[in-house]
Amino acid sequence: MSVADHILSELYSVVGAEGVLVDPEALDPFLREERGRYRGASSLVVRPSSVEQVSAIVRLCARHALSLVPQGGNTGLCAGAVSDAGQVILSLGRMNRIRSIDPVNFTMTVEAGVVLETIQKAALDADRFFPLSLGAQGSCQIGGNLATNAGGLNVLRYGNARDLCLGLEVVLADGRIWNGLKRLGKDNTGYALKHLFIGGEGTLGIITAAVLKLFPRPLEKQTALCAVSDVRSVPHLLALARSLSGDQVSAFELMARFSLELACRHLDSVTDPFESPWPWYVLVEFSTTRAETDLRTVFERFLEEAFEQALIGDAVIAESGRQDAAFWRMREGLPEAQKHEGASVKHDISVPIGSVPEFLERAMQAVSQAVPGIRPCPFGHVGDGNIHFNLTQPETMSSADFLAKWEDLNRIVHDIVADMGGSFSAEHGIGRLKVDEMLRYKADEEIDMMRRIKKALDPQHILNPGVILCSDRL
Amino acid sequence: MSVADHILSELYSVVGAEGVLVDPEALDPFLREERGRYRGASSLVVRPSSVEQVSAIVRLCARHALSLVPQGGNTGLCAGAVSDAGQVILSLGRMNRIRSIDPVNFTMTVEAGVVLETIQKAALDADRFFPLSLGAQGSCQIGGNLATNAGGLNVLRYGNARDLCLGLEVVLADGRIWNGLKRLGKDNTGYALKHLFIGGEGTLGIITAAVLKLFPRPLEKQTALCAVSDVRSVPHLLALARSLSGDQVSAFELMARFSLELACRHLDSVTDPFESPWPWYVLVEFSTTRAETDLRTVFERFLEEAFEQALIGDAVIAESGRQDAAFWRMREGLPEAQKHEGASVKHDISVPIGSVPEFLERAMQAVSQAVPGIRPCPFGHVGDGNIHFNLTQPETMSSADFLAKWEDLNRIVHDIVADMGGSFSAEHGIGRLKVDEMLRYKADEEIDMMRRIKKALDPQHILNPGVILCSDRL
Repeated sequence: MSVADHILSELYSVVGAEGVLVDPEALDPFLREERGRYRGASSLVVRPSSVEQVSAIVRLCARHALSLVPQGGNTGLCAGAVSDAGQVILSLGRMNRIRSIDPVNFTMTVEAGVVLETIQKAALDADRFFPLSLGAQGSCQIGGNLATNAGGLNVLRYGNARDLCLGLEVVLADGRIWNGLKRLGKDNTGYALKHLFIGGEGTLGIITAAVLKLFPRPLEKQTALCAVSDVRSVPHLLALARSLSGDQVSAFELMARFSLELACRHLDSVTDPFESPWPWYVLVEFSTTRAETDLRTVFERFLEEAFEQALIGDAVIAESGRQDAAFWRMREGLPEAQKHEGASVKHDISVPIGSVPEFLERAMQAVSQAVPGIRPCPFGHVGDGNIHFNLTQPETMSSADFLAKWEDLNRIVHDIVADMGGSFSAEHGIGRLKVDEMLRYKADEEIDMMRRIKKALDPQHILNPGVILCSDRL
Repeated sequence: MSVADHILSELYSVVGAEGVLVDPEALDPFLREERGRYRGASSLVVRPSSVEQVSAIVRLCARHALSLVPQGGNTGLCAGAVSDAGQVILSLGRMNRIRSIDPVNFTMTVEAGVVLETIQKAALDADRFFPLSLGAQGSCQIGGNLATNAGGLNVLRYGNARDLCLGLEVVLADGRIWNGLKRLGKDNTGYALKHLFIGGEGTLGIITAAVLKLFPRPLEKQTALCAVSDVRSVPHLLALARSLSGDQVSAFELMARFSLELACRHLDSVTDPFESPWPWYVLVEFSTTRAETDLRTVFERFLEEAFEQALIGDAVIAESGRQDAAFWRMREGLPEAQKHEGASVKHDISVPIGSVPEFLERAMQAVSQAVPGIRPCPFGHVGDGNIHFNLTQPETMSSADFLAKWEDLNRIVHDIVADMGGSFSAEHGIGRLKVDEMLRYKADEEIDMMRRIKKALDPQHILNPGVILCSDRL
């Protein structure tokens, strides 16, 4: 099935020849999926350069009952931008203007296709800071970050993408443009529509622009790798860090011993800074926007107090930018390091922070029982209760045999998460990948409300069908 | 019109005799409206003590097509809890248990009827801090705070009620209970339903419990009243404060000279701390959760820098708890002080922070032209761009004549706000009071989406009809 010629010619008239891709080679990057589990099947990518063009495209698709898959940098991890045959991929990458920066108001207005790193840099150039930060920041686009409510490294201090957005411009399912680009700190006039589109994964409307919150620029940071003998200390370590720092903890990342070993084994310039092994490590960062600060003193006092309370067994403070970078390379390189050890089954879960130790104990025991020799490689944003509970295959098993256990392992881990009041998708979203998990774990009332909202805002069901809610079950 | 006897007897069987009020005297507090512009006309208050009872009441009302007005502390300023004859007032005040406090997870789970001040105190008892703070905190209830997305004094640092809530328990329009009481920092599993109920003013569901975010307890604060000669300095003063404090500005409140004069004239123990008058004043507070801090040094450095940059002309630092309280009494007593000067027409507006000076200049000039002798008394949360643009009547005019200009003045002020991309209701909500303003100023696309969502979640339209969206126009 492909898009009919007369529709194609209408699309050309909207966006011009440079805005339509049909050549298989040109299409390829839009059909790839980050984890390689899916491949898009669309034969048509449309690349508008203005909100009016997006509006015209959506109207046209609505008229012909053609469904649309909005796509940003195509870096999502839950297959939220995968297309079926006959669907139109709406790529926002040409809408890449920074419309305005207002340092006094601490806001920036950007189009959906601006790459995250470009926004970070533009903020710094204006002596301001945009805190959203994640692995894909060199290629992901802010529209996608908002549509998936991206998380990343700075959530503990600054919140998710949702918390960093004051207003949106959205093209609705019938092509109308909603201008909600408010630059206001407060606006209590009716339902919080913005919050439906943020995290809505393009199923309720297409985000074309956003007003982002900026912050004072951090002027100094202190980082340490802490060695922890008992994972039950970790939530208390965080509470101590928050209290003693004046709530200036900007990162609090957990790694298991095995995770650190993988990083040391497979990543250049990453070494274990401790003399002996520890079962757990926490990468702690304090940062401040205050000049002439006593941050180092405060940081050292925190580490001393943590040591006295036996929350940590040892700690190494990064004494240079190079050492700081090496610690971060260790943490951020983990997904890459894991690839060298064969197949992985991954989970992006969260539980209340205080329950993280219990979760880790229960889940590690359960997966080891199910697959003897399995090598759990947990790490992540423990400051948010968010663990990337990744499982590396046993050394003696084939990748195929291990991957055949994917569903079983998901079930074991997610059942424990559900039992503990947690989330089976803390920051990556639902996409196509977790539609069934959502039906399994969410209350009926909630699924029902979501279906009602989808029907209310996209009655023809043309926006990213198959993502979040399956069209055939609506 | 009153509720039929057989329904009444069904209600008695759900909540018992102590849960039903029909006596006119007992009803009175539930029929009053904070500003005295409305009076409720219901003849029946139901006071459930559990979520199951709320569910049974809503089911019963749905079956009989009876509409419900949820009510917390009944302290709202936009008539969102006013009842018509034949409506049932659902008062949440008996659902007043703190279900749990979890200091390690920095969360508290509370029922809707818990008074805000009780929550603040319970947090402090657990060595934690719940930042929501507003004039009515001794009687308003958290359910109402969430339903109206309350703002108040700490929004600049900690956000609105919305930002302080991790999860909700809600009784839906058909009586089903949605348990969304997640205690998670991150959860990206589908649409952000929570955000519809927060700020939904009881029109989409009835909030019965919530998980609240807690913070480390502030250990020290520094407060100063700053004298400002040119209001255009104010946004720059805020930017400086944010940068130099390490973003630890916990309050940033504006007062005009006339506002300060009223406070000194009418409030006990409030005096002008400066030798000569200044056109504008800003009450600035830095606070920190860090022990052994250099906050005073940082605060003084900020004031010196502000003076050197000519952003302020003078400043008085509160040197005692008593002086600090006097400064706050000045600011928080303004609505009371205003009452002594006759009638007021009030506006709760926001504009981008950088545009506050332009707004004040334009609006003060326009209202003075419309009503010569009018005495603008602007004050408010300028750190959020939120000004309570209150207008005191001319000395030579009768209150009635002045109040007859209410609509005209609203139009003048809100037209300027709209022209500047602002909000005509920054923190108080819509209620019944601002339904027409909303229809006038909101884009059609947004009103249309709101109506669709209302129909999707409350198809019988029994939840707080007349609030936010008028039932006869749906």
